[in-house]
Amino acid sequence: MEIEELKRKLSGEEPQKIIEYALNNYKKIAISFSGAEDVALIDMATKIKGDVNIFTLDTGRLHPETYEFLDRVRDHYNINLKTYFPDAHAVEQMVNKKGLFSFYQDGHEECCGIRKVEPLERALSSLDAWVTGQRRDSNPASRASLPVVQKSGRLIKFNPVANWSLKRVWEYIRENRVPYNELHKRGFVSVGCAPCTRPILPGQHEREGRWWWETGERKECGIHLTLADSLSTTRKRK
Amino acid sequence: MEIEELKRKLSGEEPQKIIEYALNNYKKIAISFSGAEDVALIDMATKIKGDVNIFTLDTGRLHPETYEFLDRVRDHYNINLKTYFPDAHAVEQMVNKKGLFSFYQDGHEECCGIRKVEPLERALSSLDAWVTGQRRDSNPASRASLPVVQKSGRLIKFNPVANWSLKRVWEYIRENRVPYNELHKRGFVSVGCAPCTRPILPGQHEREGRWWWETGERKECGIHLTLADSLSTTRKRK
Amino acid sequence: MEIEELKRKLSGEEPQKIIEYALNNYKKIAISFSGAEDVALIDMATKIKGDVNIFTLDTGRLHPETYEFLDRVRDHYNINLKTYFPDAHAVEQMVNKKGLFSFYQDGHEECCGIRKVEPLERALSSLDAWVTGQRRDSNPASRASLPVVQKSGRLIKFNPVANWSLKRVWEYIRENRVPYNELHKRGFVSVGCAPCTRPILPGQHEREGRWWWETGERKECGIHLTLADSLSTTRKRK
Amino acid sequence: MEIEELKRKLSGEEPQKIIEYALNNYKKIAISFSGAEDVALIDMATKIKGDVNIFTLDTGRLHPETYEFLDRVRDHYNINLKTYFPDAHAVEQMVNKKGLFSFYQDGHEECCGIRKVEPLERALSSLDAWVTGQRRDSNPASRASLPVVQKSGRLIKFNPVANWSLKRVWEYIRENRVPYNELHKRGFVSVGCAPCTRPILPGQHEREGRWWWETGERKECGIHLTLADSLSTTRKRK
Repeated sequence: MEIEELKRKLSGEEPQKIIEYALNNYKKIAISFSGAEDVALIDMATKIKGDVNIFTLDTGRLHPETYEFLDRVRDHYNINLKTYFPDAHAVEQMVNKKGLFSFYQDGHEECCGIRKVEPLERALSSLDAWVTGQRRDSNPASRASLPVVQKSGRLIKFNPVANWSLKRVWEYIRENRVPYNELHKRGFVSVGCAPCTRPILPGQHEREGRWWWETGERKECGIHLTLADSLSTTRKRK
Repeated sequence: MEIEELKRKLSGEEPQKIIEYALNNYKKIAISFSGAEDVALIDMATKIKGDVNIFTLDTGRLHPETYEFLDRVRDHYNINLKTYFPDAHAVEQMVNKKGLFSFYQDGHEECCGIRKVEPLERALSSLDAWVTGQRRDSNPASRASLPVVQKSGRLIKFNPVANWSLKRVWEYIRENRVPYNELHKRGFVSVGCAPCTRPILPGQHEREGRWWWETGERKECGIHLTLADSLSTTRKRK
Repeated sequence: MEIEELKRKLSGEEPQKIIEYALNNYKKIAISFSGAEDVALIDMATKIKGDVNIFTLDTGRLHPETYEFLDRVRDHYNINLKTYFPDAHAVEQMVNKKGLFSFYQDGHEECCGIRKVEPLERALSSLDAWVTGQRRDSNPASRASLPVVQKSGRLIKFNPVANWSLKRVWEYIRENRVPYNELHKRGFVSVGCAPCTRPILPGQHEREGRWWWETGERKECGIHLTLADSLSTTRKRK
Repeated sequence: MEIEELKRKLSGEEPQKIIEYALNNYKKIAISFSGAEDVALIDMATKIKGDVNIFTLDTGRLHPETYEFLDRVRDHYNINLKTYFPDAHAVEQMVNKKGLFSFYQDGHEECCGIRKVEPLERALSSLDAWVTGQRRDSNPASRASLPVVQKSGRLIKFNPVANWSLKRVWEYIRENRVPYNELHKRGFVSVGCAPCTRPILPGQHEREGRWWWETGERKECGIHLTLADSLSTTRKRK
């Protein structure tokens, strides 16, 4: 089925239907679990199918609470959570040259490239499709027109909760007693790496809690912003 | 001017206009400062008039951060912040009989009565009018029809931000660099006494952070819910 | 029995023996519980005698963790914990004039006088003897020669753990599973009012965590330093 | 000079003298900086010699406060802090099989082996000597007879503060305004990886804050306990 047709077919559906379609139609598929509230996806997926591939990116700079949360989710759903870790040499090279907080000076792209994008590329290299927890309302500057399904390089990417609001996701979490990161009890909404995440004030948009020293459009970790291009480039080169 | 006429006159006005009207037309008037984000009122008032009466209720159970915040506001605006403290005998009697957390068992009314309502009555006894930071959206169960001005016993009560949303209040705070309680950096939205206040989760209504063991309508500290009656009763008795 | 004789008799005894002597020989006696680790005294006392008078001073500025701890001790030992609260008028007068943190400028004596010494005098007014958790090693500047029993105005004061070190007290707490303040898990050793208490660094003396802007000898809340004189003066005046 | 002779020569000396001797007599020498209070060594070394090799092991599980501290030290002393990071494949293999907290079940050796010992071996491979912050009083079970200098495989290991107590180290830190980890303000004394470190209670030995689910002798991260053997074995095999 063509992507545009698929988009039409799924765009009005509930997240569960979208996940079900994805899991039923792709064998080499996995859910990327970024360690925050998108465990709602895991909750939905494991109710549909016992055996789901789930992976997460351990950047080496997550909060202690996030590591604890990842393990809690692994136990709670009895899943095989596959973890990808950054390349030692690349991390050492960057850190030895620039220190541990260079992103505050020259932007988060380099660090995200080493700690997130490269491990993600390894994670995706054996897949045909993946499922993410992206929402349109999570970044008005860059995700305003995010579809529930899209091409991402040679892969199909499903965003089952693209249409859901933050509020709706959290209703689901509470109703279904889905585990969540302890940081959400302390004002954190969107949770990423520790140095690039902060709690937000009342009334602030969740994106204010990420890469706050940068402007709206750049506030993407690189996974979703540049991956399509970087991957297709990679493929072309080969 | 009759209250209904006044309501019509002020209901569409911006908070600053309402405060200005109040301060200009009532001599025995004060702003009640509950120690959270309604310092926006103080910011507006002190820009209108140098010498404003402001009082706060120190219940003896506020967070250390709240005491620090009260003092910071006092210094920042160079105001004479009048504090009311609960009666020693009444506190001792309740606590000796029931312990320090009896409200979790038999409701917050008794404790609020001793630590908030009685001190408030002392604060109001010499006033003709007071200004509060109540908003309609802060408690859908009990404040949905809150007017910007109303009778409260023998007093006139102004609620200048009744029409403002939480989001709008916080825009004002950020734009005007208004000081705020450090607790707001840790997931607290509505802040009262320490044992009766908690941070909320993403997507939760601010009222979920107060008296969470009780149901919606009772979630008022007694100041705004029962005062009108209790005061008018008091007056009638005399 | 004369005080000097009593001192000789008890000075080499274990705390339990001293408490036992005190409880058996004085009817109007109470343990003052300052809300930190001296709950060891309560543990010893309740093992000796079912019905012990215990009082605490709620200054209105304790940590939320301390209030929670006081209630936990009350439940754990099923004791009637008598609480004394400061006089509203005295607190209001000080705070309205000087703000909530005047002690950082002009010393803690005035605030301790209102929030601790006056309530303590009420607590002691009906007693002949009291039991405290003072230790010699807790303040080398002022407690170096603290005896296990002494005259304090017209009262007899017992200090059963005067000879014990901090380390010994905490061994007792762990061995006997005595409840302790949660703040002790976060670097706090000596715990008093929130604004006048801080965690200490490794290797620091516990007294560094109290009234750190003042010098050693003054680092007493006034209860133990000046009470003897103030009480005897009071009595003489009558 | 023979090791025994060197030991006699240095055992009574102050740390500064020992460091000075080490830096002057070994070219391929570095200070291992474990990210806690042993920055005292760096303070001493940089006062002796401008250009000192310092390395640290970033296990990927340090506290956010520790990363912040490492960078603060790097800036403060303007040093070239060389960081070693664990091998991605080894971390992934362990974590995918056993989860992120397997050390609580089957001991810390495997995880320390991957995250600390292997990176350390890389760090030491080009050195003839290294300087550590080990103290005798930091682990009575395993370090009671720690000398100020010893053989460690083919290397010479200097322990300049072996004779110093925790208290003495912290006196040095305060007197010399040496930067320290913010965690030390919250009850942490000995600081390692986040999941294997906890604050201690008053009166507890610092070692109670590390690997608390294991017994005394095993409470070594493997760096100092087994390295000598593992290294000499490695060498022999080649």
